[in-house]
Amino acid sequence: MDNIPVPRLYTGIKGKNIDKRMTRTEKISPLAPANLPDFPEITGVMLATAATGVKYQGRDDLLCVAFPDGATVAGLLTRSKTSSAPVDFCRRNLATGGKARALLVNAGNANAFTGKAGDVAMMSTVRALAKKIGCETHEIYISSTGVIGEVLDSEKITVHMDEITRMLSASGWPAAARAILTTDTFAKGAVRRTDIGGVPVKISGFAKGSGMIAPDMATMLAYVFTDADISQDILQSLLKEAADKSFNSITVDSDTSTSDTLLAFATGQAGNGRIKHAGDPALANFRMVFQDLLLDLAQQVVRDGEGASKFIEITVTGAEDDRAAKVIAMSIANSPLVKTAIAGEDANWGRIVMAVGKAGEAADRDRLEITIGGQKVTEYGMAVPGYDEAACTRHLKGREIVISVDVGVGGGAATVWTCDLTHGYIDINADYRS
Amino acid sequence: MDNIPVPRLYTGIKGKNIDKRMTRTEKISPLAPANLPDFPEITGVMLATAATGVKYQGRDDLLCVAFPDGATVAGLLTRSKTSSAPVDFCRRNLATGGKARALLVNAGNANAFTGKAGDVAMMSTVRALAKKIGCETHEIYISSTGVIGEVLDSEKITVHMDEITRMLSASGWPAAARAILTTDTFAKGAVRRTDIGGVPVKISGFAKGSGMIAPDMATMLAYVFTDADISQDILQSLLKEAADKSFNSITVDSDTSTSDTLLAFATGQAGNGRIKHAGDPALANFRMVFQDLLLDLAQQVVRDGEGASKFIEITVTGAEDDRAAKVIAMSIANSPLVKTAIAGEDANWGRIVMAVGKAGEAADRDRLEITIGGQKVTEYGMAVPGYDEAACTRHLKGREIVISVDVGVGGGAATVWTCDLTHGYIDINADYRS
Repeated sequence: MDNIPVPRLYTGIKGKNIDKRMTRTEKISPLAPANLPDFPEITGVMLATAATGVKYQGRDDLLCVAFPDGATVAGLLTRSKTSSAPVDFCRRNLATGGKARALLVNAGNANAFTGKAGDVAMMSTVRALAKKIGCETHEIYISSTGVIGEVLDSEKITVHMDEITRMLSASGWPAAARAILTTDTFAKGAVRRTDIGGVPVKISGFAKGSGMIAPDMATMLAYVFTDADISQDILQSLLKEAADKSFNSITVDSDTSTSDTLLAFATGQAGNGRIKHAGDPALANFRMVFQDLLLDLAQQVVRDGEGASKFIEITVTGAEDDRAAKVIAMSIANSPLVKTAIAGEDANWGRIVMAVGKAGEAADRDRLEITIGGQKVTEYGMAVPGYDEAACTRHLKGREIVISVDVGVGGGAATVWTCDLTHGYIDINADYRS
Repeated sequence: MDNIPVPRLYTGIKGKNIDKRMTRTEKISPLAPANLPDFPEITGVMLATAATGVKYQGRDDLLCVAFPDGATVAGLLTRSKTSSAPVDFCRRNLATGGKARALLVNAGNANAFTGKAGDVAMMSTVRALAKKIGCETHEIYISSTGVIGEVLDSEKITVHMDEITRMLSASGWPAAARAILTTDTFAKGAVRRTDIGGVPVKISGFAKGSGMIAPDMATMLAYVFTDADISQDILQSLLKEAADKSFNSITVDSDTSTSDTLLAFATGQAGNGRIKHAGDPALANFRMVFQDLLLDLAQQVVRDGEGASKFIEITVTGAEDDRAAKVIAMSIANSPLVKTAIAGEDANWGRIVMAVGKAGEAADRDRLEITIGGQKVTEYGMAVPGYDEAACTRHLKGREIVISVDVGVGGGAATVWTCDLTHGYIDINADYRS
């Protein structure tokens, strides 16, 4: 199906200008993939959406996903010191056994930075859902995304508990992927099929966010679902490993939200054999495909980065170790000067040299090699004599930019993904009052 | 005298688009101070400038400052791992006794990332100047600022050595402050008078830079001169202390240059008594005034931040210690979302909460207090009921923005200074091709 823009008509509280940007209407990002994938049913996963009117009119903004008894959950949550109440709740629940019976997500109000009143509002929705599902409150996972600093009116959500739990369906995926959006310009989803020890399993996921870049309104949320039979500790280990090379390797503007949440649910209905440990050879395919799916979702978030006109892949090799390579790659990816140079289609590799230098990790200035669009532009710590700058510029005029840097000291490597920094970013984040 | 714009006519090498931004002409920053100060003569400091034509036409771009035998020098240099040849040279010289007989600065070519050829070019100018002055090469301090990646044509500089050393004068200060500029929109200087143990001493300084934000072209350079009699180790200690609360407490866009240099020279001609150690009570006034002058220069650099329309002071209190407070303050100052909100005159304090959270230092979300323009807008981890948002917006419509944040965990405090992030920044750094 087509990625039609999500209506974002705002009807919030007068005078709260932190909400104004919700009124912006915007074209789909030029970097968007053509369509949402065709989501298959995943045995044990049931979904439904509803329209609460908390912020938006004319669209669903509440998602409920239910799981059978025995489903496991793993998760990674923002490391922000000002994390939201829902994030803290999920963190506590993950620590108490990792059984999940339901996920509830509302879009439009992050219920973050709202003190005790925010906790009370959240727990009232959690209790209402646990009662309908017939489970413990610690088996409920909850996310809220939207405005910071306004207490969520929980009645607007609890009033839909009866309806939404009655509507649960195995085919509610596209509506689910849309219901969680806020400032996104397109819905984000990915689907994979693989096997565990020869038994077919499916993995599907959806995400929201225009990067980790709009913590007052939009945040990064991602949910992955599989019918594999897989214990919490193994799922957590796979999720950590895959997230390091996907969601933790993307950046739009270096701003980390108070609500970032990545949850993976496994219903255990596929009938694969018992997996003994995270290194079990039966998991080889699953591990690879799981990571591929997470990377797909993460890259879709970058492709919806606020104001983005180019998708940028940055690979660093020759660093002291993989960690150092990632620090350097992120220093390049977060540099406003590198990002504006790429927006301007300017082969300004001096700024890449600068960003390598400021990263603080070991780099041999006199062995630094920079490659742009496959062409080496510097080696031995200086420009390659007579390199073809026109070819470099042609590459930068495209939408998919590939940069690699060898820092000449070791065997560490990492790849990260980002977007450029354009007038669109300033428009969205500074000018929306005008 | 008035701060007239510096002509920036570029005549560089065809096809090197990394130079294009030197062609931009630009109005003086709206945040600029009215005038350069009236520089007094400082006994022992002699200055001269010349026009080399390395990059610019119609303006002086080479500065020479000479000091008498016995002058001391202290310095702080960029921690970039890709630092320039001149930075490395100054670092070596500082480690070998800290005697200075001359400073040479050229604007238009940073002689950075130019391999061995860059070293050779630099040493040829150093030797030419040492011969004219009659000193050792390790008594020469050198800075180059401008384009990265082009070897400096040293002959264009050495040909002026005779002329520039003959022209040295005690009154050459305003010309000196102008000769070192690149993309700056105004010249930056500061002057103070104080005493050491009752003996009058003078301190003057000048700086260049539109922040640490344009490492291909402009970098932060600052030079401070005093007639005080003060040993290198004590001067270094004072400089480190003062820089931590001035140059190391400013940011424009978080990008650190390959050439950042701060040097302090003391001619020893004031006739003050011997200072025994950095804690000597006779230094109390000097220490205070020295720091005040460095802060003045550092704030002028922020006021010339690329595209800046607002000067922002951010104070963090209640942190675990002063270091943690500075990390949090810098996290706020470098957040693109905070900077764009202020550009948009939007009292979006949710973004400040986010920036505190992502800093990684201890903060008590439920005791967080944010004050904007003197008005407390959050306390107990949520909005102050009924705070006057109109007053907040009025404050943000001004040019001088004051924000303070108490994170509620300890006694650590720090203040940093930055500017907003505007379309002007994107214009300068991405759009100059068009």
